[in-house]
Amino acid sequence: MEFTGAGALMMNSQTQRDWTSTVFRARYAETDQMNVVYYANYFVWFEIGRTEFCRQHGFAYRDMEEEDGLCIIVAEARCRYKAPARYDDEIEVRTALGEVRRRVLTFVYEVYRKADDMLLAEGETVHVITDLDGRPRALPEKYRDLLVASAGERAPEP
Amino acid sequence: MEFTGAGALMMNSQTQRDWTSTVFRARYAETDQMNVVYYANYFVWFEIGRTEFCRQHGFAYRDMEEEDGLCIIVAEARCRYKAPARYDDEIEVRTALGEVRRRVLTFVYEVYRKADDMLLAEGETVHVITDLDGRPRALPEKYRDLLVASAGERAPEP
Amino acid sequence: MEFTGAGALMMNSQTQRDWTSTVFRARYAETDQMNVVYYANYFVWFEIGRTEFCRQHGFAYRDMEEEDGLCIIVAEARCRYKAPARYDDEIEVRTALGEVRRRVLTFVYEVYRKADDMLLAEGETVHVITDLDGRPRALPEKYRDLLVASAGERAPEP
Amino acid sequence: MEFTGAGALMMNSQTQRDWTSTVFRARYAETDQMNVVYYANYFVWFEIGRTEFCRQHGFAYRDMEEEDGLCIIVAEARCRYKAPARYDDEIEVRTALGEVRRRVLTFVYEVYRKADDMLLAEGETVHVITDLDGRPRALPEKYRDLLVASAGERAPEP
Repeated sequence: MEFTGAGALMMNSQTQRDWTSTVFRARYAETDQMNVVYYANYFVWFEIGRTEFCRQHGFAYRDMEEEDGLCIIVAEARCRYKAPARYDDEIEVRTALGEVRRRVLTFVYEVYRKADDMLLAEGETVHVITDLDGRPRALPEKYRDLLVASAGERAPEP
Repeated sequence: MEFTGAGALMMNSQTQRDWTSTVFRARYAETDQMNVVYYANYFVWFEIGRTEFCRQHGFAYRDMEEEDGLCIIVAEARCRYKAPARYDDEIEVRTALGEVRRRVLTFVYEVYRKADDMLLAEGETVHVITDLDGRPRALPEKYRDLLVASAGERAPEP
Repeated sequence: MEFTGAGALMMNSQTQRDWTSTVFRARYAETDQMNVVYYANYFVWFEIGRTEFCRQHGFAYRDMEEEDGLCIIVAEARCRYKAPARYDDEIEVRTALGEVRRRVLTFVYEVYRKADDMLLAEGETVHVITDLDGRPRALPEKYRDLLVASAGERAPEP
Repeated sequence: MEFTGAGALMMNSQTQRDWTSTVFRARYAETDQMNVVYYANYFVWFEIGRTEFCRQHGFAYRDMEEEDGLCIIVAEARCRYKAPARYDDEIEVRTALGEVRRRVLTFVYEVYRKADDMLLAEGETVHVITDLDGRPRALPEKYRDLLVASAGERAPEP
């Protein structure tokens, strides 16, 4: 997967990816003494994007756990930083499904500064499905369908 | 500003209070763009002090919950800030029991910069004991004894 | 000052206080292993409310610092917890000016769960104005006017 | 780079890498409602490791900025999670220099649970050097020497 920022986003949006968007302001608590948002906080923002992605796809991210006795474990997380976010900036996190395999789920993220639609960061998180004892399990059909569904609905253009 | 802070500490130490001490460095992640440790993080530090206080009194703060089906709820938290903490400062949190009543527990805290033993902040947290359904309950004897015990052991008795 | 929760708010709203409101969702990162929002995070929420209060009163909270060479130091912070906030709850923080004295500024906060307008917490923060060397200074007239202004506009009803 | 955990560490230690170690306890504030340390906090732990690495190599990580008008920007961060950390676990972060190029610095990290020396996570961060206007700059010789020096001192001598 090769990203080239906003351009890549547009191409993706037009072709296969179904991006959801969440907007909020960078908090004072999130800054560090370099006057920018501390780098670990982007992963908190990814979580916000992930939550919103699931909500807009018809289910709560954590329902899987409660209703189906499954855990979604973060197996890997990665962020590439392009430009700093500052206190009180209006931030947009765009989230899309990267890959859905039997036991592995990938989300991708792009973080923008709303004021000028500048790409600040992009990243991905890889998740594996396990039962409550930590054994690998398959992602239930219903969630797979929900995750893929709306992308399908909006996608097909001959 | 009216304080009975460091003076009170000495008096307390000599008479009834049993202070425990925890030392760590201020983290970069804890600073904000004013170049000081963000004010909410002092309450995280209080929690570190509280954990250590219980450990040194012979039990794990959270065992009460797991073993006895009780919850220790934070009912109130308060901090007075005297001087800023900075990145990489060596910080000492001193923790003592404030009050132990049947259903209410109070801890008090003092935060020092190790380099010059400067008092940076002081605060307290008030906790209530409830069962898992949120109904008020009495603090079990064994914890009460442990909390008070070592203070008693070391306190002068005429 | 004696608070009695939502009732007090209504009375205050009707009489003298000018409350501003901010709404957001509780983040997964803000929960702890007790399944509720960690207590220190309410102070982060207060900061969000404070930022919004100033924005709605015509200035950015941090402009004072940059434009006037003044610092607004948090001197004291306090929170009383009434009921827990949970992951993904829609949270409303209502913020009002407590007191404006020459060198001291107090904000008061109420945190509600939007779903049932339940009061989760209330608190206050006390701020002092200093110059860049930490010496006490008076709050400039223009900020005092902005802070008090809109409350005055909406207040007087015989 | 293919990691296989503690084995890889030992091989690395014996051959070229100079690992520094930092030990601390997982904080209650760092847990989330899944009862484990929230994934973003590992990046905070990496920062602690990085700070300690530099301290043990004779300089403060942030001195570069203050003394030389340079910024060290995080360009990329990545973590692979192997097993969860829990509240009050004693955690060891081992940090080593990955690569030092003219304008790019890489640190690698391994996070262990002390109790059984279990590898919990491993990751890396990529940093670029810029001046205060954000233009790429070379890493000054003195820092390069300090970073590489002690590795050399302790490296095997034929």
